[in-house]
Amino acid sequence: METVMERECSALGGLFQTVISDMKGSFPIWDDFINKAGKLHSQIRATVVAVAAFLDAFQKVADLASNSRGGTRDLGSALTKMCLRHRSIETKLRHLVFVDCLINPLQEQMEDWRRTTSSLDKDHAKEYKKARQEIKKRSSDTLKLQKKAKKGSNCTHQNNYQNIVNDICSCR
Amino acid sequence: METVMERECSALGGLFQTVISDMKGSFPIWDDFINKAGKLHSQIRATVVAVAAFLDAFQKVADLASNSRGGTRDLGSALTKMCLRHRSIETKLRHLVFVDCLINPLQEQMEDWRRTTSSLDKDHAKEYKKARQEIKKRSSDTLKLQKKAKKGSNCTHQNNYQNIVNDICSCR
Repeated sequence: METVMERECSALGGLFQTVISDMKGSFPIWDDFINKAGKLHSQIRATVVAVAAFLDAFQKVADLASNSRGGTRDLGSALTKMCLRHRSIETKLRHLVFVDCLINPLQEQMEDWRRTTSSLDKDHAKEYKKARQEIKKRSSDTLKLQKKAKKGSNCTHQNNYQNIVNDICSCR
Repeated sequence: METVMERECSALGGLFQTVISDMKGSFPIWDDFINKAGKLHSQIRATVVAVAAFLDAFQKVADLASNSRGGTRDLGSALTKMCLRHRSIETKLRHLVFVDCLINPLQEQMEDWRRTTSSLDKDHAKEYKKARQEIKKRSSDTLKLQKKAKKGSNCTHQNNYQNIVNDICSCR
């Protein structure tokens, strides 16, 4: 019974270690994601500025067509319509709050996450060591008592043995 | 009759001048449009690169969710799906042949347009001057003949006068 418990204990400890190392291994990936999202965000901002400048120039061409002599008035109004539709895309891009709803919250969470993982790891190491020592101690106590119980089979020894076994079971 | 013709001639000349100066005035606007379109194009190119890098990072996060222990496999496949949809937007942006179907053709047209406008202006100035002088000369000839015709009303003068009037009319 003692060996089963020790095996279980180290299996659980190993699983915990895998999860923790998965979490630690994910930090560079999240950092990279935040970094790339930041770069994309600043690129989109720059593109919005370029789009605005382009649409201003486009509108001037449309005005040119509207105001010049000859049959270009219809062309001018069609170009103006196109320009207005593009303006609505520009407005949508401008209101893309990428940084407020993705990058900043993630960045904040990252700090918390790093802290939590490290404290989980530390706490687990401490508790795990303590639990292993406790289990080892109780295992050797149990072995001793088993030997004694085999030699003399008096009632007190039997009771002590049962109590310790119960203790170990409640530890699980 | 001569004055009407001179008035008509200068009105048409003025209209031509207005159209030509409209065309000349439109060059800076077209130049600005081509310039802004070029800037927008290079911004879009840079944005496509940033989008590609962002989607790579995003895919890594999705893989992380797919491969880690725990109930995050579904999250991982949902994120992968999202990523694939964004990839199709990236592909569309990448195949935006803005420069081939707008900027370059316009740039080539601009040169032609500039040349044509300038030669139109030059040719018109030359022809206009010639036509005006012709009209003036014939007007003064006509006046002289009219005076002569008033003095003596012989047949030859009348015929000459009629010929010159017909000549001027055929000039219009």
